[in-house]
This record gives sequence, C-alpha cells and structure tokens, in this order.
Amino acid sequence: MAPRPVALLLQYDGGAFAGWQLQPRERTVQGEVEAALRRLLGHRVPVAGAGRTDAGVHALGQVAAAEVPERWEPEALRRALNALLPADVWVAGAHREVPGFDPRRHALERTYCYRIGTDAASRGPFRRRWEWGVRGPVDATLLRSAAAGLVGTHGFQALSAAGPAREHWRCRVREALWQVREDAPGLEFWITADRFLHKMVRFLVGTLVDIGHGRRPLADLEQLLHGDDNRLASPPAPPHGLFLVAVRYPTPHDAGRP
Amino acid sequence: MAPRPVALLLQYDGGAFAGWQLQPRERTVQGEVEAALRRLLGHRVPVAGAGRTDAGVHALGQVAAAEVPERWEPEALRRALNALLPADVWVAGAHREVPGFDPRRHALERTYCYRIGTDAASRGPFRRRWEWGVRGPVDATLLRSAAAGLVGTHGFQALSAAGPAREHWRCRVREALWQVREDAPGLEFWITADRFLHKMVRFLVGTLVDIGHGRRPLADLEQLLHGDDNRLASPPAPPHGLFLVAVRYPTPHDAGRP
Repeated sequence: MAPRPVALLLQYDGGAFAGWQLQPRERTVQGEVEAALRRLLGHRVPVAGAGRTDAGVHALGQVAAAEVPERWEPEALRRALNALLPADVWVAGAHREVPGFDPRRHALERTYCYRIGTDAASRGPFRRRWEWGVRGPVDATLLRSAAAGLVGTHGFQALSAAGPAREHWRCRVREALWQVREDAPGLEFWITADRFLHKMVRFLVGTLVDIGHGRRPLADLEQLLHGDDNRLASPPAPPHGLFLVAVRYPTPHDAGRP
Repeated sequence: MAPRPVALLLQYDGGAFAGWQLQPRERTVQGEVEAALRRLLGHRVPVAGAGRTDAGVHALGQVAAAEVPERWEPEALRRALNALLPADVWVAGAHREVPGFDPRRHALERTYCYRIGTDAASRGPFRRRWEWGVRGPVDATLLRSAAAGLVGTHGFQALSAAGPAREHWRCRVREALWQVREDAPGLEFWITADRFLHKMVRFLVGTLVDIGHGRRPLADLEQLLHGDDNRLASPPAPPHGLFLVAVRYPTPHDAGRP
C-alpha cells in the first residue's frame, strides 16, 4: 500500500532552534522531526510545515505532514515520535490526511499570539523565555485602537522583513486584538489572517507597542499600511514572545477540501 | 563604615544547576551569585542562603544574604546583579538587614510548592520543565486526606533522604494542602513548616501520589510518620516539580527579631 500523509500537530519551544526550516549545520525543528521519522521508519521522509517560524519563535499548534506507511496508526506514531524527539519538541496530535495534503497551501488561516509582560518579574527566570518584558506604562486603549485598524485587507510590505519580490503584499486580517493576560501582568496580541509575511507579527507588535508607549502617533500605522518601506516601522519585537497558535483548514464538509 | 548585610530575594530555574550550594567544578546558584558579587565589588563576598535546594529544584523566593559596603543602595545592587547574572537566576528584591542577619538560622518557616500535571500536555515543551506529569487518575480526596494528616509535629526520618545523624527528625508542619491548578489540569501541593529535611517534600509527594493513585493505602502515611526507614516510602518525586516559594522571618515588631 502506498504511504498516506499523516498530519502532526506540533508544539515547540523555539528558544534553542534556528527556526522551523531545515538548514545545513543548524538545529531546526523540521530537522529534528525528520531525524526522528528517519530513525523510526528506516529511510528519509520529508516533513512539510504550515508555517516557517523564525529562530526563537515558538509553536503551540504548528501543523506538519509526512508520508508514513499505512501500518502506522497515527496515535502509535505520535507516541513513538515523542519518545525520540528532544524535550523542546512535542507531538500533541496526529491523524491521517487525504492524499496530496499540503499543510502550507491548504491552510485557510493562521493565528499567532504575542505575549508582553509589563511588570519587572516578566524578566525573571520563569517568564523571560516566553514573553517580551516591556518597560514603562503602555496605554491599552491606544493598543486596542491600533489593533482594530488592522482588520481587513491591507498591504503589509512596510510591516515585514524585506525579501525577494512578491506578487503582492496583501494579507486579509480577520481578527486582531489585545487581551489582558490572566496569568501575569501584561497583554497578549492575537492576530488571525489568511497569510503572514516574514516577521510581520514582530514588526506589527514593535510598532503597536511604540504607539502604546506614546512614542509615535496612532496615525503612523495607517501610513505604514499604505507604504512600502519597513525602515519607517519600529524595530521588530523579539522572537521569544511569539507563538504560532493554530492553523485552520477546511473541514471535510467545506467545498474547498482537497 | 563596616559592610552591612543585604538580603536578596532570589528566583531561579533549577534545571541547569547542581543545586544551591557551592561545589567545586559544578554550576550552582550560590556560585553564580558569588561570582556576580565578586565582579561588582572586586573581592569575594560569601553568600548565605535560607535553604539548600537540590539539583533541579526551583525557587520563587529563596532568601540569601551577603555583606555589602554601605555605599550600595539595595535597589542599585539588585539591578547591577541582574545585569551580571545568567538568565536563569534573578534578584527579585533587595533590602538592608540588621548586622548578624542569618537567612537560615533566623527563618521561622519555609513554604514549598510541588506542581503535578495530570493531562498529556504536561509533558509538552512548555510545561515539562516545571511540573511532574503523572499518568492515570489521581483521587484528589485521598490526596487531601493524606495532606491533612501531615499538619502538626511529626518525625520525618522515613520521609527524607538518609544522611548524617541528627539530634532529631521532627518538623512542625503548619499547613499542608492540595490545590487544583488554575493554569493547567493538575494539582499543587503546598506545605509550610519550620524546617525541612533533605528531599522531604519530594519523598512526601512521591508517597502521597502513590496513595492518590490507589497504589498504597492512606494508612501507610501514618506508619511512615512513626518510622525511621525511608525504604518504606515511595520513591521521591522528581526535582523539577518543586519550588521553594517563600521563607518567613520575624517582623521587626516580633520579639525574636535579631
């Protein structure tokens, strides 16, 4: 029987990784998952991910797919992988997918969360790995107004890292909001869109926090959404506050199901 | 002017330490704090801690003291130390103490917390560092009954690591209880006592969880509190679930204040 794709729901602490994507001589999440699959199956199996998280960025719900022989039950595969993977990568779920499943192309939207701490203890040993400790008061009302302005379809060229020319820089943002954290003093920025450009969430958070600190006016954001020069954006927020939380796919009943 | 002691409130992630206490050729918390003070002050300053946490055990409220020249404001010292200390140790607070202050001998009681996770995700990358993921259902009512039996003065020889002969093994437990966790599925064991023997909390949690799992009867605990053989206790729970939360001292108005 031909192998059929298994979808893996992955969590990882990005702190000790050079990002998701396989790179020679670097420790990457894709590399660790492929190494574990190779040990399990005896041959190389390429792993495709829904999103290329950068060095230092975490995931609570990255989705990856690999062609695995039918004899492997997804739950048995999940357990076997967890026994082989290092402590900072964990397979939270696994299920069979339809042939041809492509976690990147078939995704409808992604959700990211960026965590900010506003007290001194956010720089303590238990929290500093997974949040950005910002100093000084942040105006939550300003942050919320700025986030509301992101919803809709906009060009994010000036709010992402420069890279190769693209067909377009438009992203459709379905939701963008700030929530007060319950676990510690601070805020979380939640954003869901059909796609994200390189470092887009970090550029957004860097600029929004500057607005919330009163260091630049709210009006700058609209300018940036019409511009193409990321030197006008604030420096991107550090990677360790960012989590890829979820990737959404068509349900089997949706028309677009592959 | 003679140096006066400064009390430091320390937080640390014990995962990469061979414990609190200075040891040659090992990375210890005391060693890191002494190294930072030496860089700051130009000479060696011994640091005394309230409790000797073991390898892998964390602290949210360890108290340490060092003799620091009067010209150092405690808050300035705190910031300077945090700039020099590695990411897994953090000085949360600092204040001047009376001459002769001894964080171990003058402590009235200590509070420890042990965290247990009861879902599969407790073994995921974000939680496994700081909790013990136990498998199978745990009977919270049994756990609570067992904890209630610990309050009072008991001998804990059979519930601690063997060591050199001591005058006595009695500890006065003021509070011992299990709380349902709010941050994730699981439980926390909180215990406050005048003193703790070596590995005592971990032996207690190992035995209590066996009782909560139905692997041994509740009556065993009372037997152990009257015994002297720790081979009859369950294996100690792993260190990474344990936190030294607080150390309490007489307030300046108490009679016993040094």
